[in-house]
Amino acid sequence: MLIIRTITELKKCIKRAGASTSASPRKRGSSNKTIGFVPTMGYLHDGHISLVRAAKKENDFTVVSIFVNPMQFGPNEDLDKYPRDEKKDIALLKKEKVDILFLPGTKELYPGGFKTTVSVKELSGVLCGASRPVHFDGVCTIVCKLFNLVEPDTAYFGQKDGQQLIIIKKMVEDLNLNVKIKAVPTVREKDGLAMSSRNMYLTKEERAQAPVLYQSLLKAKELINNVGATCQAAPTKIINTMRKMILNGTNGKAKIDYIEIRDAKTLDKIKKINGGALIALAVKVGKARLIDNITIQNNNRGLASQKL
Amino acid sequence: MLIIRTITELKKCIKRAGASTSASPRKRGSSNKTIGFVPTMGYLHDGHISLVRAAKKENDFTVVSIFVNPMQFGPNEDLDKYPRDEKKDIALLKKEKVDILFLPGTKELYPGGFKTTVSVKELSGVLCGASRPVHFDGVCTIVCKLFNLVEPDTAYFGQKDGQQLIIIKKMVEDLNLNVKIKAVPTVREKDGLAMSSRNMYLTKEERAQAPVLYQSLLKAKELINNVGATCQAAPTKIINTMRKMILNGTNGKAKIDYIEIRDAKTLDKIKKINGGALIALAVKVGKARLIDNITIQNNNRGLASQKL
Repeated sequence: MLIIRTITELKKCIKRAGASTSASPRKRGSSNKTIGFVPTMGYLHDGHISLVRAAKKENDFTVVSIFVNPMQFGPNEDLDKYPRDEKKDIALLKKEKVDILFLPGTKELYPGGFKTTVSVKELSGVLCGASRPVHFDGVCTIVCKLFNLVEPDTAYFGQKDGQQLIIIKKMVEDLNLNVKIKAVPTVREKDGLAMSSRNMYLTKEERAQAPVLYQSLLKAKELINNVGATCQAAPTKIINTMRKMILNGTNGKAKIDYIEIRDAKTLDKIKKINGGALIALAVKVGKARLIDNITIQNNNRGLASQKL
Repeated sequence: MLIIRTITELKKCIKRAGASTSASPRKRGSSNKTIGFVPTMGYLHDGHISLVRAAKKENDFTVVSIFVNPMQFGPNEDLDKYPRDEKKDIALLKKEKVDILFLPGTKELYPGGFKTTVSVKELSGVLCGASRPVHFDGVCTIVCKLFNLVEPDTAYFGQKDGQQLIIIKKMVEDLNLNVKIKAVPTVREKDGLAMSSRNMYLTKEERAQAPVLYQSLLKAKELINNVGATCQAAPTKIINTMRKMILNGTNGKAKIDYIEIRDAKTLDKIKKINGGALIALAVKVGKARLIDNITIQNNNRGLASQKL
């Protein structure tokens, strides 16, 4: 595994990679070699590793980046204390036989005088974007940069960051970026808690309570699937049930940022489940702001046409 | 010349164009074929043709796009009446032996649900951006899209749109876009008026007066170069001289949007000419909002260190 810290070096290595994975698919000519790319902020867990394995499996060449992107943190957020463990991350990625680890410093990606923002309006102001107003502009900008640097055929993102995934897909579509986006299912601890670098902020007690977030999502799914019994239930009812579960499960200590049910593609609010729906939540448990989500598809029971 | 109206077709042709003829698998990716790209809004004049010739001269393959981009027009601007002449444009480009003319409709580039904006903050709110607040976001977004579609090695822009050029260079730098930007000198009518599709809005009388814009820029240059005689003159003095010339030359009818002297790279205001300076103006003459600019470089007379 090559560890690369500068753009110049990265460009050289990408070009060299497999003689012909160089540059954009167009410039690569008729080579069939493909690059898979996994952008991360490091402090890797099994969720990241599942992305890496998907990239490895589907491509000739795999690039992982680790960059804690200042642009996606608000002024009062956890940029400074965001967990880092470079040594452990390197060891994990070596074990996965990643080809290139791109590990740039902040000045390499944001040199003095940086002025550009990529923004997917509308999608970026709701859910997590409501309480983190600059977050998704920061995500889009860095992801766009990394795509241009790595020039991957396919990039891999976790379903856990559901809104991020939707926004990045929309950015790629709107800007005609030459990359496929693949969603990889959320990896969970045995008790259901979605893996996240931020889980390390949890105390032992909070960690024991945190699985209630996923349990509330499963409850929502159950209520929706069991539509015969709950055909009177509006999304607001489902949300209220979830809210109660989460507060009960944390002895009232959890601070619920949001629990919402929205269209899984447009993130529009929905009054009935019609087509794919995203049930998403963000909850502060102690010092950790945890997010999780599940996607509900239409099922065979004609759910789309039934009011909940 | 291929005339292409859809993204799918464009992608196919670009891929074919870039494909190396080399039989050796090792060399398949290292094709030396280059694509030169000239994005335009059509109604082509000699200014555009000079861009096309530069692209032809320096590349194996030349793509020109014609697209009147709604996103860069404000609500009260001239989108609807912006001049169009597809037949004439096609004839001109055929004569220049352009390889591909990309001529998409609006829905091809902005399908329903389009949500993304690329913005080079700070640079986009001054000069033309002050009176056209959405203009440069629209320019950046469409140029970014076109770069991703055409995947050119080099793209060509006119120096006449000086601020646009600076903003696009900054976007390319910030987003690590894989394209070189080349500036091509402004092409002028015999009497000095910068060529522009909007010149056709001018009445005969206004057309006769319009060269005073360039004359005022030349006067500014003269004042700056003749620094020995004008070492007391601040940029504001130069600007006042220009303002008077323009008003005199149009019988007081011109409406000056701005005349400014700014740093040629950062567009910061400058109090003395130190390094490259951009002298830029936008003036409404009748129905036409005309822009022009010149760039002042340091000369051998130590101008950089002298106060004006």
